[in-house]
Amino acid sequence: MSDPISVADPEHARALYEPLTQSVRRLVDLTIRSEADDDAVRRAHRLVDEAAALLGSRVAPGSFGIRSDAAGRPMPWGNVAIGVRNAIAPPLDVHRDSDGRATADLVLGAPYEGPPGQVHGGVCALVLDHVLGATAHHRHQTAFTGTLTIRYVRPTWLGALRAEAWIDREEGSKTYAVGHLLGPDGEVTAQAEGVFIRPRSAR
Amino acid sequence: MSDPISVADPEHARALYEPLTQSVRRLVDLTIRSEADDDAVRRAHRLVDEAAALLGSRVAPGSFGIRSDAAGRPMPWGNVAIGVRNAIAPPLDVHRDSDGRATADLVLGAPYEGPPGQVHGGVCALVLDHVLGATAHHRHQTAFTGTLTIRYVRPTWLGALRAEAWIDREEGSKTYAVGHLLGPDGEVTAQAEGVFIRPRSAR
Repeated sequence: MSDPISVADPEHARALYEPLTQSVRRLVDLTIRSEADDDAVRRAHRLVDEAAALLGSRVAPGSFGIRSDAAGRPMPWGNVAIGVRNAIAPPLDVHRDSDGRATADLVLGAPYEGPPGQVHGGVCALVLDHVLGATAHHRHQTAFTGTLTIRYVRPTWLGALRAEAWIDREEGSKTYAVGHLLGPDGEVTAQAEGVFIRPRSAR
Repeated sequence: MSDPISVADPEHARALYEPLTQSVRRLVDLTIRSEADDDAVRRAHRLVDEAAALLGSRVAPGSFGIRSDAAGRPMPWGNVAIGVRNAIAPPLDVHRDSDGRATADLVLGAPYEGPPGQVHGGVCALVLDHVLGATAHHRHQTAFTGTLTIRYVRPTWLGALRAEAWIDREEGSKTYAVGHLLGPDGEVTAQAEGVFIRPRSAR
């Protein structure tokens, strides 16, 4: 099989797939909230299957993985938190300071619901895991989560959120990170502590 | 606005929406893994937008919430872990014993990836949060996560997984639950402890 298009020409692939992913993200939301009449839902279903058949005409085996572009920059496009081709991802746009501090603003709507009107506690954990983990990234290498503890101090309402994380201390390959999730009103809704481990290849 | 169809006739709505959700789930996967030619991707994109327009012809405001059927049974169809209308949800099919023990078998593919070939640590947390939380459910009422701690003991490879949780002890409105995630080979990949709190209305 020839090189996947996304490796051969990342800019072209991003222009092709990022808007598609945004449309699929919208479709996920509408599949939950639609109250269209039966006929419209059935027609929509057929269109989704047609779209899947087109996309499925050629498929990479396995998962997307973390491919690199020609310059060696990682392209984690399938990643469930940040992947530009993953419609599950909000996606998180994590900003990382030179001192390792990481921040992400995001909006979570109906597809991320747990208790009525609230973000699922597990989704809060997913966001915090990723943003705390980002503090431990060195030279674009992934850090694996060792331990993660989340304290849910008040409901996290669906809407605009901010996740913030910073390094408490580093010991060898381990980064001890702390952080929190801020709700739409700016109050802390969940606090997190995590230990993240860089594999040997990344040190 | 009249009652949403999903409340008026749950069986009818499930027959309509569950297969659609499965198709959208497949579309999410293919949007990540497709290597179709540009023209096929652009045509798929147009079909997705057409499907979204049909579903969007009538939309419930806000999130799905937890609606109830005529018999008062909860329908958490939008839930990000178990919702039959949420294409993000694997979905988890949680079995709960009379003693509160909860189990779920699931298959996680490309859309749940973090490190290459592995389930994202945050997705492990989402699954464990939900299954541990299920031990604390009384009379179908949601229990809110108070604290959740996950220890990642080895990589969780994408594939067939099992989540198991049981009650360590209960104190008033609090359930102290423990559990783990088992990888495709049956080894424990992540261990979890959680405190789940039932709201006053559920006691």
